[in-house]
Amino acid sequence: MPDFNTILNTVFQEVTNQPDTGKVATYIPELACIDIEKFGIHLLDIDKNEYNVGDSQERFSIQSISKVLTLSMAMNLIGEKVWDRLDVEPSGDPFNHLSLLEQENGIPRNPLINAGAIVIADILVSELKNPKREFLEFVRQISGDTSIAYDEHVANSEKATGFKNYAAANLLKSYDNLKNDVLEVLDFYFYQCSLSMSCSQLCDTFYLFINRGKCKRQQDFLTVNQVKRINALMLTCGFYDEAGEFAFRVGLPGKSGVGGGIVALLPKKFCVAVWSPGLNKKGNSTRGMAVLERLTTLSDLSIF
Amino acid sequence: MPDFNTILNTVFQEVTNQPDTGKVATYIPELACIDIEKFGIHLLDIDKNEYNVGDSQERFSIQSISKVLTLSMAMNLIGEKVWDRLDVEPSGDPFNHLSLLEQENGIPRNPLINAGAIVIADILVSELKNPKREFLEFVRQISGDTSIAYDEHVANSEKATGFKNYAAANLLKSYDNLKNDVLEVLDFYFYQCSLSMSCSQLCDTFYLFINRGKCKRQQDFLTVNQVKRINALMLTCGFYDEAGEFAFRVGLPGKSGVGGGIVALLPKKFCVAVWSPGLNKKGNSTRGMAVLERLTTLSDLSIF
Amino acid sequence: MPDFNTILNTVFQEVTNQPDTGKVATYIPELACIDIEKFGIHLLDIDKNEYNVGDSQERFSIQSISKVLTLSMAMNLIGEKVWDRLDVEPSGDPFNHLSLLEQENGIPRNPLINAGAIVIADILVSELKNPKREFLEFVRQISGDTSIAYDEHVANSEKATGFKNYAAANLLKSYDNLKNDVLEVLDFYFYQCSLSMSCSQLCDTFYLFINRGKCKRQQDFLTVNQVKRINALMLTCGFYDEAGEFAFRVGLPGKSGVGGGIVALLPKKFCVAVWSPGLNKKGNSTRGMAVLERLTTLSDLSIF
Amino acid sequence: MPDFNTILNTVFQEVTNQPDTGKVATYIPELACIDIEKFGIHLLDIDKNEYNVGDSQERFSIQSISKVLTLSMAMNLIGEKVWDRLDVEPSGDPFNHLSLLEQENGIPRNPLINAGAIVIADILVSELKNPKREFLEFVRQISGDTSIAYDEHVANSEKATGFKNYAAANLLKSYDNLKNDVLEVLDFYFYQCSLSMSCSQLCDTFYLFINRGKCKRQQDFLTVNQVKRINALMLTCGFYDEAGEFAFRVGLPGKSGVGGGIVALLPKKFCVAVWSPGLNKKGNSTRGMAVLERLTTLSDLSIF
Repeated sequence: MPDFNTILNTVFQEVTNQPDTGKVATYIPELACIDIEKFGIHLLDIDKNEYNVGDSQERFSIQSISKVLTLSMAMNLIGEKVWDRLDVEPSGDPFNHLSLLEQENGIPRNPLINAGAIVIADILVSELKNPKREFLEFVRQISGDTSIAYDEHVANSEKATGFKNYAAANLLKSYDNLKNDVLEVLDFYFYQCSLSMSCSQLCDTFYLFINRGKCKRQQDFLTVNQVKRINALMLTCGFYDEAGEFAFRVGLPGKSGVGGGIVALLPKKFCVAVWSPGLNKKGNSTRGMAVLERLTTLSDLSIF
Repeated sequence: MPDFNTILNTVFQEVTNQPDTGKVATYIPELACIDIEKFGIHLLDIDKNEYNVGDSQERFSIQSISKVLTLSMAMNLIGEKVWDRLDVEPSGDPFNHLSLLEQENGIPRNPLINAGAIVIADILVSELKNPKREFLEFVRQISGDTSIAYDEHVANSEKATGFKNYAAANLLKSYDNLKNDVLEVLDFYFYQCSLSMSCSQLCDTFYLFINRGKCKRQQDFLTVNQVKRINALMLTCGFYDEAGEFAFRVGLPGKSGVGGGIVALLPKKFCVAVWSPGLNKKGNSTRGMAVLERLTTLSDLSIF
Repeated sequence: MPDFNTILNTVFQEVTNQPDTGKVATYIPELACIDIEKFGIHLLDIDKNEYNVGDSQERFSIQSISKVLTLSMAMNLIGEKVWDRLDVEPSGDPFNHLSLLEQENGIPRNPLINAGAIVIADILVSELKNPKREFLEFVRQISGDTSIAYDEHVANSEKATGFKNYAAANLLKSYDNLKNDVLEVLDFYFYQCSLSMSCSQLCDTFYLFINRGKCKRQQDFLTVNQVKRINALMLTCGFYDEAGEFAFRVGLPGKSGVGGGIVALLPKKFCVAVWSPGLNKKGNSTRGMAVLERLTTLSDLSIF
Repeated sequence: MPDFNTILNTVFQEVTNQPDTGKVATYIPELACIDIEKFGIHLLDIDKNEYNVGDSQERFSIQSISKVLTLSMAMNLIGEKVWDRLDVEPSGDPFNHLSLLEQENGIPRNPLINAGAIVIADILVSELKNPKREFLEFVRQISGDTSIAYDEHVANSEKATGFKNYAAANLLKSYDNLKNDVLEVLDFYFYQCSLSMSCSQLCDTFYLFINRGKCKRQQDFLTVNQVKRINALMLTCGFYDEAGEFAFRVGLPGKSGVGGGIVALLPKKFCVAVWSPGLNKKGNSTRGMAVLERLTTLSDLSIF
């Protein structure tokens, strides 16, 4: 293992010295007021050593990073049946997400784009008695941290303004690929996205994906095979329309959120979470991307 | 003027002798139970002579034909400002209506496709105190027939199942091209589509478009220029993805609805309404299309 | 009939007084050096009265206007079989013409877009012994003017640079919707587009379409039915992505070319040709469009 | 390292026992006559141990697998400048490759789809004096095998029928993203695709990508960073529209060709080549895909 302590500090310094060209996401009003200067990195290796720098203990809205967790819970519950209603291909299209859904008759390209995550939300709403409570419980168990919680202000903010998600859910419904009521599914979906977690808590949770499906307390949540597949999906589909770029420059499976968080991991070695709210045009944290590119370069660790 | 009496009877006979290859629309449950054998034609010439055959006095759900009437009311109310939020080009695309909306940043191609008609509905909801009541009053005044009414069963049926319209309205909202609440606009939209009218009543109403903007009682509702533009839109955009085919085979401006109605007209000469609920794959009445093609061939009347 | 003499002079003056916001097409090098100040109008009524103003006798490259003439010749030769390989719907898409061809498996939307006109060219290459000579002869016969000729400089200029047309032809070939050799078909196509004609000669030629298929010397070239269909196609598809706009503002069937020419017509009444090389963003002559809008407004003549 | 000998024999047996649902590619006539029963596997580990079964020494047309090799040569020649003319995102679109090119103004999505590989071919044609000879020499040097050669019959067969490639190259030219003559570039492209190699020779060549840029004789051809990036591209873009599926099921970077070959690799561990000419609907060898899925499952070796 490389000297992560030195590497993280070097990278943090390098990136801080550059101006942040990103912009805070404004389309969810509640997220628009985040301080763009927030910046934290946390790294957890397979032996549970931890390294961090900056605002690594401060909670932020994980947003789309939650899609990996709902997918995990759905696979845990119904296994491969998930794929009857979803594909596993990169969406690759910067500007017409609903177009793809229409052209492909209501089968979302993958579970990490919004339409796909809404189908996963629908599965959880069907399978669980109290979806919000049980999903939160699932995340708390994986991470071993009972303080993790939803941010209702964020959830309600998106509920009031997330018209593209209403459009996607209704389009799915028109193709009969949504079994429950649109508003009920989206209520759950907006809550899952509002999960508030720190870089440190994200690492605790994503330890599962570097440890072949076992959480930090060695409890099984996913099979080895399921973890490999979820990692593959993170690599090919985890960064909106920039998945290829991330694989190309960073070379790790990962997932970003518009709250400015990114989590990435090297199976059997380490997982790392970065938070910096300035986003590039494709919706990924500019500093987060820079950190991870430098980290894999300096450590010479990547899946490739 | 040709002998319309003979022509209508000839055409009615010819078409009745052919098997109806169309299918009744099923996506609005309330429309699915219509008797496919219904078949009526009504023609009204500029001198107010009337000719009819079959079920020409029976009311049916006019559906998308109503889009011409809401457009007329919107132009009557705010004139050319309508075009700030809409284009006037044929959509020309059989399979991806929402795609176009996405690619063109929320500006619907024209007011006769669903997304465009929803923008028009939004305009009426903004401009009118009681949109449903006032629009109905507008149609009654044009037609001179106070018995025209909404069919609430049809409106509610579509309200419960019209998910693609909810998707379109939310997508418009996400592009800020819907000013009012999505549900409020769609409530109006589903009511306008549920208007129940006979072929005879449709002719009385569309007389406006052959009479340079004046209704049968010679009251002005639209300017000459507005009528020319609405007629142009009917020709280029009135038949979903079959507008070119209709112009090519029939050569008249017109508008169809999934209830099986079609109204078509030759400016300064006549307007004609046909009703037969069996639809072709593109959503237009098969017998209606056949009737109008034969009618223009036998009468040698078309705009071309 | 209105006083066309006064109207043409009024319109010419009005439009000349406005700055020309258009730009000369540069993608065919040979066309880029045209004097943007050229401006002519010619009108021919059904009784063969002629009215003109400006550079109405000067020849220019008719480019896409030729597509109406090759279509006419193809329909004259093989009739309705033309439609086995082409559709009649507006393309309606400003930015992805090859996309449509791909999505629709090599069937061009209509014969007035490039891909469709290349299929028509292929038909003529199959049907004729000496396509270039015989097509020129066809145009000379219709117009009664043996001085009409190709401009080989323009043809060769496009042959050297028309890569999108090579792409379209090869794509058609890949779908087996091109029977002859790509280069042979395009050679003919580039020649047809290079036809050099004046506004006056265009009117002589398009007289056919206002006179139910008979040329000025009353010789039959097309049936009444064929003329109606070609006129319908000009209305729905004659102005690239601006066909709806033209129908909406002008209300006449017509066809434009990137040489700056537009020909438009009112069946049984008159045809009119305008030439002004400055084009708008959609490839249509800005002054030509303005002239025709004013002409139909002042004369109160349109098909609607 | 697992017992590859046993694993390969097990997998070979398992897959042979299943009927081959694939079909031989017919669009290149010269490839259509391949015996569908051909089936070979070859594996080379980082220590240069070799394992094989079936027709592993028989040569076949590597087709698109060659794209990885031309990309490598281009990166070797001009480094990161390659990316000025190409993107690195998955294409993700099963049916409209030229559409994407059109929508994205002539910048191919990545170098492993045809349009992208044609741009790479253009770079080599610009950079090399005798592109065909020098590229062949490059492959021979990497593999250490001077017997590798083009199959001129295959090259000429595709030259006569590869209309979609002519379309793509002309479209690139229209966007000025092809510097040399279309026919010259495609001549090179068809030759590169016609390379005839065995599974064994493919492993010798792709050893470079498991050995951080050094060939079997430890000569440097690419930097560590370049190899990581090419491996990332193989993972996200190596299997046409099935890249996500391959990453999901197999979890290795790789590249397929319509000749029925697939090469895949685990960095620092092994590379493996499979050949079976029956292709699935997406153009990848059905048996090849099955072999690799079973191989990574039985060996528990994947990047995830």
